Amino acid sequence: MKPGIPKGTRDFIPSEVYRRQYIFDIIKTLFERYGYQPIETPVMENLETLTGKYGDEGDKLLFKVLNNGDFLSKADKDALSRLDSQKLVHSIARRGLRYDLTVPFARFVTMHQHEITMPFKRYAIQPVWRADRPQKGRYQEFYQCDVDVVGTDSLICEAEYLRIIDQVFKNLGLDVVIYLNNRKILAGIAEEIGTPNRLNEMTVIIDKMDKIGEEGVHKELSKMEFSESQITRLLSLLSMDDLQTMQDSLKGSEIGQKGISEMQEVLSYLDGLYLHNEVVTKVSLARGLNYYTGCIFEVSAKDIEFGSLLGGGRYDNLTGVFGLKGVSGVGISFGVERIYDVMEMKDLFPSELAQSIKVLFVALDEASHKRAFFLAENCRMKGISCDVYPDPVKIKKQMKYADQIGVKHVVVIGSEELKSDKYTFRDMQSGDQELLGQDELVQKLLM
Amino acid sequence: MKPGIPKGTRDFIPSEVYRRQYIFDIIKTLFERYGYQPIETPVMENLETLTGKYGDEGDKLLFKVLNNGDFLSKADKDALSRLDSQKLVHSIARRGLRYDLTVPFARFVTMHQHEITMPFKRYAIQPVWRADRPQKGRYQEFYQCDVDVVGTDSLICEAEYLRIIDQVFKNLGLDVVIYLNNRKILAGIAEEIGTPNRLNEMTVIIDKMDKIGEEGVHKELSKMEFSESQITRLLSLLSMDDLQTMQDSLKGSEIGQKGISEMQEVLSYLDGLYLHNEVVTKVSLARGLNYYTGCIFEVSAKDIEFGSLLGGGRYDNLTGVFGLKGVSGVGISFGVERIYDVMEMKDLFPSELAQSIKVLFVALDEASHKRAFFLAENCRMKGISCDVYPDPVKIKKQMKYADQIGVKHVVVIGSEELKSDKYTFRDMQSGDQELLGQDELVQKLLM
Repeated sequence: MKPGIPKGTRDFIPSEVYRRQYIFDIIKTLFERYGYQPIETPVMENLETLTGKYGDEGDKLLFKVLNNGDFLSKADKDALSRLDSQKLVHSIARRGLRYDLTVPFARFVTMHQHEITMPFKRYAIQPVWRADRPQKGRYQEFYQCDVDVVGTDSLICEAEYLRIIDQVFKNLGLDVVIYLNNRKILAGIAEEIGTPNRLNEMTVIIDKMDKIGEEGVHKELSKMEFSESQITRLLSLLSMDDLQTMQDSLKGSEIGQKGISEMQEVLSYLDGLYLHNEVVTKVSLARGLNYYTGCIFEVSAKDIEFGSLLGGGRYDNLTGVFGLKGVSGVGISFGVERIYDVMEMKDLFPSELAQSIKVLFVALDEASHKRAFFLAENCRMKGISCDVYPDPVKIKKQMKYADQIGVKHVVVIGSEELKSDKYTFRDMQSGDQELLGQDELVQKLLM
Repeated sequence: MKPGIPKGTRDFIPSEVYRRQYIFDIIKTLFERYGYQPIETPVMENLETLTGKYGDEGDKLLFKVLNNGDFLSKADKDALSRLDSQKLVHSIARRGLRYDLTVPFARFVTMHQHEITMPFKRYAIQPVWRADRPQKGRYQEFYQCDVDVVGTDSLICEAEYLRIIDQVFKNLGLDVVIYLNNRKILAGIAEEIGTPNRLNEMTVIIDKMDKIGEEGVHKELSKMEFSESQITRLLSLLSMDDLQTMQDSLKGSEIGQKGISEMQEVLSYLDGLYLHNEVVTKVSLARGLNYYTGCIFEVSAKDIEFGSLLGGGRYDNLTGVFGLKGVSGVGISFGVERIYDVMEMKDLFPSELAQSIKVLFVALDEASHKRAFFLAENCRMKGISCDVYPDPVKIKKQMKYADQIGVKHVVVIGSEELKSDKYTFRDMQSGDQELLGQDELVQKLLM
């Protein structure tokens, strides 16, 4: 049998694990500095928790877990006889793999509302699953990295996220542009062009601006029977990225004015603070998700076309579907898989990430091998990572292994060293050697 | 809709995440000090990778993932019409959730044999899934924590594990007894009592010794038609925990002698090294798994009955089933869920694990709120975790929140503080207050 793994999934070898961990650690450090705390939710959720939350398309992409035992005994017989897969599912699978971290978070907040203190600031870095067609950079099993605060509608949270985003990418060494918008401005624009009830249709199309350009947006809006004058006015409004001009243009829209003043309020928190990356207001930023009700965030790499590296925004009713009303929240989600790819491409990972050993002990006979173990233990007790080649085989083989794992120093032990209690310490790069006693060796490695 | 999670799964609130992380970090630190490196494998494996590896009982406990789309179109029509769940599974589910970390590791080594250097030392700390009946301390989704080295049969590895085990439990503050045996001694005993071909049956029963006692083992062996004299001899041999006596008793068995000399060799590496916990040779230690071929490890808490906290051993042919022959390995698996429970019970977690904020800023009006954000950012840029209450509401409400999250210091900012640029720094426990300037505040918190 030739072993393989499911399409769209991956094994990670140590160097990849360390690189992923490097990204996660930088993000976690910032999150905790702002008072966010980690929670973890199960990989398997009840399907009734997941179904209907991601639209029809999302429901199709959910991975469902087959009930155990004689699952057919409780299967929907009618669906079975008609070979109706979609109808049969719910009678043979009551669990599924989580599709994102947002719905489990809403479920968590509702279930644990009496154990947590509002406002509740949490982060989560966990894998999610989607039965999307795998392609370059898109997986069926991949990590999300979310941070949210619920139970407050204060705009200080949005300001905090701008600071966090700026510092995360600064610490990763990746220059980005941070885009900011407010759904209420889009609502104001919809009012201004006389189609207040078509906000959602409109934003879905605006969202494609980066892909299909103004001309494409124009065409699609025409198809949807927006009038020529509406479209012209819309495109002219969308090209205004100056809040002052926008304020004048949306004079007639109360919600539009609210959106602008929210943006101004968020930015006012940043007065006197230096940001490494540019924050750009971009009224054409829509992010298709209908549940955003206030600020919207997006991040792109500065000098490379790579799509969005982060998205987020404010939502007014995250937990409503689970019966907990009136919980406003705001959150952002780092696209860690894509961030990894950009960092690889731009060679931004530090070269010495792997926690590799500092020294390899090479023994030439059985007695030396025992001494090597003893010396290695001496080092380890001082916190020094090291290893003993498992067998006292020919030195050539052991040195080849030292080369392969890229260790910087080797200590050679033979009968001579055993007798003198002085050990040959070799620098693998320069080839320099010196004789060191047990304590000198530890001191050398601690330097 | 009332939200819930599947039986046998858990949410972890921040305090639990930090406690679990505490255990994982202690273990990881030791692993890396001995040259082990992390790998990660996907949660979903192909069912053909998993099936048949855990016995019939294990196959039943595998969680299977339903194929996406119109899965019934390719279903086994015969199994469907006869409502044969077991037969149907493979035509509607080609993936499953991993059941342990050992089989995915064997698959990984086989697939990546040309990318890794042998001997290959790896660790993995990841969740696994089993459709066991959930009960106290047993979950359907739980973590395993495995460390293995493959590609060498040197007994220095076994000695290394004794050292790692000793230090992990020492660092966790949990006193344990480390039991050591060798499957070859059990084989020697089987030879000695004249039933060399009944080793597996014999070990399955010996394995129950702790649960059912000598009398119970006697009864079960009788039922299996071991003769009275065989049983008496067996029990007498099993009660010998002195290697020297055993060596004399197994004079006639070559494999038995080999087992004893392997044990002696392992222990000889520890000469001159101090262990915090006791290592006990225990020839009745069997650990039912048939794939162990050499040393066997087990760990129990010292002064509390809590079952096994760790298991492991040497196997000679881990990757054979995937077509890679002749790879010997040895590994141990920390029972991290159970270790967590014992540590909770014995109150062994440090009290200050949570990365909670050092100070909460409390503002009394809008202008103070902006200043609070600025001051908080000053602190954060120095690496100090802190937070601003999201709204400048009544001070009583903000102080109540400070109490609830257990923050030790609060900085109060009102119009007076704004004017003087001196801020009221309050110790929440003592109630002491002092006025501090911006830099003094940072200095105070860095102390």
